[in-house]
Amino acid sequence: MEALKKRILAEGQNLGKGILKVDSFINHQIDTHLMYEVGQALARRFSDVGATKVVTAEISGIAPALATAYALNVPIVYARKTRPITMTGPVFVEVAPSHTKGRDVFLMISAEFLRPEDRVLIVDDFLASGATLMALVRLVEHAGAALVGIGAAIEKRCEGGREALAALDVPIVSLAVITDMSDGQIVLS
Amino acid sequence: MEALKKRILAEGQNLGKGILKVDSFINHQIDTHLMYEVGQALARRFSDVGATKVVTAEISGIAPALATAYALNVPIVYARKTRPITMTGPVFVEVAPSHTKGRDVFLMISAEFLRPEDRVLIVDDFLASGATLMALVRLVEHAGAALVGIGAAIEKRCEGGREALAALDVPIVSLAVITDMSDGQIVLS
Repeated sequence: MEALKKRILAEGQNLGKGILKVDSFINHQIDTHLMYEVGQALARRFSDVGATKVVTAEISGIAPALATAYALNVPIVYARKTRPITMTGPVFVEVAPSHTKGRDVFLMISAEFLRPEDRVLIVDDFLASGATLMALVRLVEHAGAALVGIGAAIEKRCEGGREALAALDVPIVSLAVITDMSDGQIVLS
Repeated sequence: MEALKKRILAEGQNLGKGILKVDSFINHQIDTHLMYEVGQALARRFSDVGATKVVTAEISGIAPALATAYALNVPIVYARKTRPITMTGPVFVEVAPSHTKGRDVFLMISAEFLRPEDRVLIVDDFLASGATLMALVRLVEHAGAALVGIGAAIEKRCEGGREALAALDVPIVSLAVITDMSDGQIVLS
C-alpha cells in the first residue's frame, strides 16, 4: 500500500532494537483517512474468506481492526489486557510476551463474543514476532471458531512472525513490509 | 440518535452502582456500522466549530473518536494511560480518577501532537462524572490549544458530568442520554 509506505519513510523513526515509532499516524496520533485506506486494503485482500468477525488486541490494534471490519461489514472484538468491571461472564484467557512492555500481558475475550460458528479474521497494527497474534489465534481456538486469515498494517519481516504463523495455513497479509532496520535504517520491500 | 438508543435498550445491562454494560456493541465487541453512525452524528453536531483534531482517552474512546474524526476529516490523538517505549519526547500529563478501575489513572499526550494552534474536539464513549473528560480538557489547556467542544456517545445524566463541564462554555453533545439507572432500570430521555 503505497500511501502507507510513503508515510513510514517520511515519518517513521527507527529507535533501535527493532522499535519503529509511528506515533504520528498509526499509534497515539492517527491519520483517520490513512487508517480508513488501511482497512479498505485489508478488506479487499480478505474479501473472499467469509469472515464474520475481526478480532484484535487493545490498544493499537483497535483502529486498523475497526477500519477493516467496517469495510467487511462485520463487528470487531478487541481482546482486553485488564479485566474491566463490565466483564462479568466467562472469558477465554491467553498470555503473550510483550516486546514493548518487557513483560507478559493477558489477553481476554468474553466467551459470549467468540462462538464456534464464527469465522475470524485477526488484524493488528504490527506483525513482528507474531507473539501477540499467536495468542489471539489461541483465543480463537479456545472458542472453537475458525481462523480465516491474519492481517497487519506493518510487518517487520526480520522478526520472524510470518514463519511462526505459517503452520496455521491461513492467508497472512501485511500492507507494508520492513526488511531491514539495522544501522538506523528503515528499508521497505 | 435512535439506533443507539434502541441498541442500549435492547442490549445494555444495568450492573448496578451506575455501571452500564454495553460490551456487545460499544466496548469489547463493536458494531462497526453503528460506530460509524455515531461518528457521523457527532461530526454533524460539531460541523461548524472548526476542529483541527479530535482528542480522546484510550481505550474505549478510540472507536467513537476515530469515527467522528474520520467524518470531520481530521486526525485523532488518544491519550495514553501507560507510557509506551515509543513515547520518547516531552509529554503533557494529567491524572483522572477512574470510576471503573477504582484508582487514579495517568493520561499522557506527546507535546508534539497537541499544539497551541490546534482547535480540539474531545470525544469519548461515555459522559458520566466528567472526570476523564476534565483531565483531557486540562491536557488541551496545558498545550495552549483551543477547546471547541465535547462529544460523547452515551451520557449518564445522573452522574453530574454535564454540570461539571458547563463552566467551560463549549458545546457538549451526547447522542443518548440515560436519566435513571435506579432499581435496575435503564431510562433514556
